[in-house]
Amino acid sequence: MTPTVQLTCDLISRRSVTPEDAGCMQLMLERLEKIGFKTEHLRFGDTDNFWSVRGEEGPLFAFAGHTDVVPTGPEENWKIPPFEPQIVDGMLYGRGAADMKGSLAAMVVACEEFVAAHPDHKGRIALLITSDEEGPAKHGTVKVVEWLEQRNEKIDWCLVGEPSSTALAGDVIKNGRRGSLGLELTVFGIQGHVAYPHLAENPVHKLAPALAELAGEEWDQGNDFFPATSFQVSNINGGTGATNVIPGEVKVVCNWRFSTENTAEELESRARAIFDKHGLKYDANFNLSGQPFLTAAGPLVESAQAAIRKVTGRETQLSTAGGTSDGRFIAPTGAQVVELGPVNATIHKVDECVKAEDLDLVKDMYREVLRGLLA
Amino acid sequence: MTPTVQLTCDLISRRSVTPEDAGCMQLMLERLEKIGFKTEHLRFGDTDNFWSVRGEEGPLFAFAGHTDVVPTGPEENWKIPPFEPQIVDGMLYGRGAADMKGSLAAMVVACEEFVAAHPDHKGRIALLITSDEEGPAKHGTVKVVEWLEQRNEKIDWCLVGEPSSTALAGDVIKNGRRGSLGLELTVFGIQGHVAYPHLAENPVHKLAPALAELAGEEWDQGNDFFPATSFQVSNINGGTGATNVIPGEVKVVCNWRFSTENTAEELESRARAIFDKHGLKYDANFNLSGQPFLTAAGPLVESAQAAIRKVTGRETQLSTAGGTSDGRFIAPTGAQVVELGPVNATIHKVDECVKAEDLDLVKDMYREVLRGLLA
Repeated sequence: MTPTVQLTCDLISRRSVTPEDAGCMQLMLERLEKIGFKTEHLRFGDTDNFWSVRGEEGPLFAFAGHTDVVPTGPEENWKIPPFEPQIVDGMLYGRGAADMKGSLAAMVVACEEFVAAHPDHKGRIALLITSDEEGPAKHGTVKVVEWLEQRNEKIDWCLVGEPSSTALAGDVIKNGRRGSLGLELTVFGIQGHVAYPHLAENPVHKLAPALAELAGEEWDQGNDFFPATSFQVSNINGGTGATNVIPGEVKVVCNWRFSTENTAEELESRARAIFDKHGLKYDANFNLSGQPFLTAAGPLVESAQAAIRKVTGRETQLSTAGGTSDGRFIAPTGAQVVELGPVNATIHKVDECVKAEDLDLVKDMYREVLRGLLA
Repeated sequence: MTPTVQLTCDLISRRSVTPEDAGCMQLMLERLEKIGFKTEHLRFGDTDNFWSVRGEEGPLFAFAGHTDVVPTGPEENWKIPPFEPQIVDGMLYGRGAADMKGSLAAMVVACEEFVAAHPDHKGRIALLITSDEEGPAKHGTVKVVEWLEQRNEKIDWCLVGEPSSTALAGDVIKNGRRGSLGLELTVFGIQGHVAYPHLAENPVHKLAPALAELAGEEWDQGNDFFPATSFQVSNINGGTGATNVIPGEVKVVCNWRFSTENTAEELESRARAIFDKHGLKYDANFNLSGQPFLTAAGPLVESAQAAIRKVTGRETQLSTAGGTSDGRFIAPTGAQVVELGPVNATIHKVDECVKAEDLDLVKDMYREVLRGLLA
């Protein structure tokens, strides 16, 4: 077993189901502090976090990641116990193998190799690690970023270790993410008996054409980096259960994933215009859970592309697809942000696994990124 | 207290919450049998019914009604106990006062008065009484009608004692009712993550324009007797509860109240055409709970109009509005059907009541209808 695979196994063995850390951070820090990293332990609410830095001044590069994992579901559904990692046919199985204990191990070993080769590297290397990425994400990266801002500490380049690859290690990196805007909409009518519709006002009937318009709307056409903004209804509920009663209200929960061609304010304003055009009596609760961000180009993206090319011979693809990540908290500080990690095909599933060899490829990519920026 | 009010009180005192009869039928039958009625007790399932007739041959007039009442809700919310009738300021209070124990008492006393004056009346007088009108209505009038058909017994004129009046006794009679067609619709899509809409298909988005079209459709324009057919959604439900999941299906419950300008088959066919036009993948379960019926004119309507004019000096209004009644089971046999009873303002509510004097007006109207048809 290589050092990266061994450390991954040691991390998987710790049952760090969100928001527990279960000793993972300690394992990483013992190794990092041996090579000159200095650590701040940051506990917010129920969540352990750390910020550990090597170097005194100059440009600041940070790896970002999380030690917590999603629950396993019934463990008997796994072909190997999820916290007893095993390699079978070249695949390393265990909860967190792909998301993202393999990346954490790769960060530590990459730092070890880079520091051994470049003990007097330029700038600073940091790790920003939380145990609250898979849960509510209220006491993790978002709080560490606030703490850094209070100290006027500014990350220049941030590599988030999320599993970005789709088929082969390094085939895709994320250089941005869409924004996420939620809406809880209640449309009001007048309850009544279906036999006396003139005495009632059916809110489902009022809503239907407005919803048809929302669902059919072109919010933007996206751009070179983002797909077009999309709108989706996730929940709709109205009615008393009785078949002869016109409901007094109907509730809709929906969500926009939006590109940098749009803003939350613009989407809200256009949605309200549609509600008003259809004469809805409504209450709308908009909730912005993440601004879109983009690192279109620059030294970080170029270093990542060059590192992948060097390690795998591959040209990587830049993508902004997929769900949110902690990058949404870091990018607004002005940092360049990319996400680079192993193949994400099995994340959050039973029998989560990753090709064991890929972890050393990821480790090599991370080391080459460090070399490109700080050697 | 007049005999009609006294008998109404005696009936209210019996707690005949649907489908219980609680001795109400026995009370009516003792009186009817004294004046020559002959009774068939008809128990179907959990339900008591009776068919009682006076006379041997000739045209058959039937009063139809029910002894069961809807539940009271918490009795402490009533200003008088709902099964202890009292007259306060001229109003008789109690569950069933208006719907329809007052009418049952009026039927019995009207028969007594009519038979006393016309012991050798023409034709036959019958009462068709059930204790399952307010519940599922599966073992009541519908079964008695089947039983009559098996015996080749055919009602010519049927007066249903439902409280048809709106402000003054006799101001409105119902000479028909709209049909009722229910629909349970499930629209299928493909469940997925809101961040990956291209991998999912949102059934709410597919449904919305179809629902807008259904809600806006002119199904017919009604006619001289019926308002236009109306469509109403009563319930709509879709979604997993999670805000980031596109639901796999959405369920809609809806209902048409339809005029004699339409048929259930026609409505179903037009609805399916709309679903198909919008490319829905769906499952539709249509349920016809009542055909529309109409007694446009004829001896029964004329007798009722004349009786109301004679007793109150009022010109009554013919109406087909409102919910369904047991008339829907009787009309399809070819009988002329009207509904005539006291003011319905408080039916199914707390503090159900009726003007005590009106019960004798209703009794007089019933007697005059008998006189008009059978004297």
